[in-house]
Amino acid sequence: MSDAIPVDSVGIVTPQIALFETPLALSCGQALSSYQLIYETYGTLNERASNAILVCHALSGDHHAAGYHTMADGSRESKPGWWDSAIGPGKAIDTNHFFVISLNNLGGCCGSTGPTSINPETKQVWGADFPIVTVEDWVESQARLADKLGIKTFAAIVGGSLGGMQVLEWSIRFPDRIKAAVVIASAPKLSTQNIAFNEVARQSIRRDPDFFNGQYLDNNTVPTNGLGLARMLGHITYLSGDAMNAKFGRQMRHDSYQYNYDIEFEVESYLRYQGEAFTKRFDANTYMLMTKTLDYFDPAARANGNLAAVLKRAQCEFLLVSFTTDWRFSPERSEEIVNALIKAGKQVSYAKITSEGGHDAFLFPIPRYMTALNTFLTRVANRLATETN
Amino acid sequence: MSDAIPVDSVGIVTPQIALFETPLALSCGQALSSYQLIYETYGTLNERASNAILVCHALSGDHHAAGYHTMADGSRESKPGWWDSAIGPGKAIDTNHFFVISLNNLGGCCGSTGPTSINPETKQVWGADFPIVTVEDWVESQARLADKLGIKTFAAIVGGSLGGMQVLEWSIRFPDRIKAAVVIASAPKLSTQNIAFNEVARQSIRRDPDFFNGQYLDNNTVPTNGLGLARMLGHITYLSGDAMNAKFGRQMRHDSYQYNYDIEFEVESYLRYQGEAFTKRFDANTYMLMTKTLDYFDPAARANGNLAAVLKRAQCEFLLVSFTTDWRFSPERSEEIVNALIKAGKQVSYAKITSEGGHDAFLFPIPRYMTALNTFLTRVANRLATETN
Repeated sequence: MSDAIPVDSVGIVTPQIALFETPLALSCGQALSSYQLIYETYGTLNERASNAILVCHALSGDHHAAGYHTMADGSRESKPGWWDSAIGPGKAIDTNHFFVISLNNLGGCCGSTGPTSINPETKQVWGADFPIVTVEDWVESQARLADKLGIKTFAAIVGGSLGGMQVLEWSIRFPDRIKAAVVIASAPKLSTQNIAFNEVARQSIRRDPDFFNGQYLDNNTVPTNGLGLARMLGHITYLSGDAMNAKFGRQMRHDSYQYNYDIEFEVESYLRYQGEAFTKRFDANTYMLMTKTLDYFDPAARANGNLAAVLKRAQCEFLLVSFTTDWRFSPERSEEIVNALIKAGKQVSYAKITSEGGHDAFLFPIPRYMTALNTFLTRVANRLATETN
Repeated sequence: MSDAIPVDSVGIVTPQIALFETPLALSCGQALSSYQLIYETYGTLNERASNAILVCHALSGDHHAAGYHTMADGSRESKPGWWDSAIGPGKAIDTNHFFVISLNNLGGCCGSTGPTSINPETKQVWGADFPIVTVEDWVESQARLADKLGIKTFAAIVGGSLGGMQVLEWSIRFPDRIKAAVVIASAPKLSTQNIAFNEVARQSIRRDPDFFNGQYLDNNTVPTNGLGLARMLGHITYLSGDAMNAKFGRQMRHDSYQYNYDIEFEVESYLRYQGEAFTKRFDANTYMLMTKTLDYFDPAARANGNLAAVLKRAQCEFLLVSFTTDWRFSPERSEEIVNALIKAGKQVSYAKITSEGGHDAFLFPIPRYMTALNTFLTRVANRLATETN
């Protein structure tokens, strides 16, 4: 990607693995007797272990949020992490001040225990037998990782989309372990339409004969058709209609219509490519599982739908961020959280960012967005400095 | 469905078939040497053959727009036509005044020549070899049907969604054969997002191993998995997010989460049911074809994207109708047509109807919508009466 490491990069990073031997009871009733989490850290943990920021990933994210695994050119490994634009020295999440932790969640397919791991009891690949995990389970497992790293309280926890749901859950579940919560392009629960799109994605995978009810690895295959289809659909929902129009419009592959089912419009080519590329890096069972994790999240259900009542427990201050053209988790969904926080008497800042980028905008270094994030976290850093003195 | 025919129904109707032996040259360069169109009529054609209204159907519509095929209870045939709420004596499209024609378009699967028909040259089912037809081809074939029925000029042509595109094409292609155009919940061309959803639907079908590259009937099967999936996706885009929330919310199948991939939320059940039901009445090749017909429509392309320039040819008056929560063809898309018509100096009325129904709202008898339609057509009828005197 680059010949030299940019000066504002966290540089070369090496993922680490934490092993957990204490069983983890899951929401579904099952327990994981042991498991591992893969994670990366950027910056330096201070003596009081008070400057840690946890970054929670979204549906198809992983632990590699910033820096480079190698500088070898051309390889996938030489690409910077998925949020490199926001994490680094002098960046919005400033590693000169903070010690940043980014992990791959349980059920993932990038190094943490998940459907592609070996089930210690059967010595076989888990596959579809891997239990469905919830946001609550993730937060529990993240807290254990924090324990292992000697972090009692996070200066901040930050996440976009499904990542934002984890942040919200942290604020409710461990109010004394989080000082600031940054919830980006998220929602307090999925809408019916969100669930419906997830169900179509799951059906795409399940109806692929290569899925074998989730035991495809035992059959030496992967459901590329179904997973690719799910990703194509996902992509449409991540982009705004305006952004798609601006990027592809009705650009054609040929000078005139061909009147067949080959690629006629460039957007078809783009979607097919995105779908195929995804199947090379992501596991279908993990994708299925993550969509269910999204579906199940609904903290307000613990108080008969009263989100403010549930958020009463939170003790941290909040920054909510939404993007104008995001129709997967529209600004209104962030505002539901903002309004519940106000009702619950919490400290909340809210930035609605103008962007054509749709839901994906949360991954982009939009100046006003980065400034909002940095301003909020600078205040957190300044407070830390005061406390230390 | 009903024991007695409602008084405002057109009653029992019998589909008719028109055979055409003159070859039809298609946009794709191929020609159909002969073909048939199935159609229904409601009301009575007046002596001057001046009171005919053509109804053009949308993606999955057919010729059975009003009345009943039989009163036998319980059978699918005893259901009223898809637009029975709008067509009948005293209804918005009043059969006391108008002679209404509704046909199944070429390439369809409900009785007109299409992929499930026999190719006269090979004596085999056409299947995927059936040529892709365009809105232009449909309008040409509809004009021939009009010729056969002795109708030189339509009092009005009416259609929603893809049907509205046919109306628009009529106004441009045969300006002297249409006096009034009613374009409902439509667009002058698909957006990139529209094309993208169509492509995912097509890929759903094509990736089903039972599709056999479109020759599934030769293989004694049908791609129910893929077609069902395409329909599930379609349904999400026909409904507004608000309507889905109102109808299903997060209603669960069981008292608590089951943490598996069976039906957890009722909306999942609804989508699966809709998908499956559709596969019993619709042909996958026709579905593929109709999505391409949508993709290709772009009359403004004939004048370097200048829709107003193309619409200059039109001589009829227009009524445009859109629905507030339609996100497949949003009000802005109808307004593009309205603005082009104003620029072209045409007579145009426009009604934006408040509805939670999303794109599907065009099928519902929303009072303000029906009134707008009826008011416009009453003016057409009054003018006819004056001309007759």
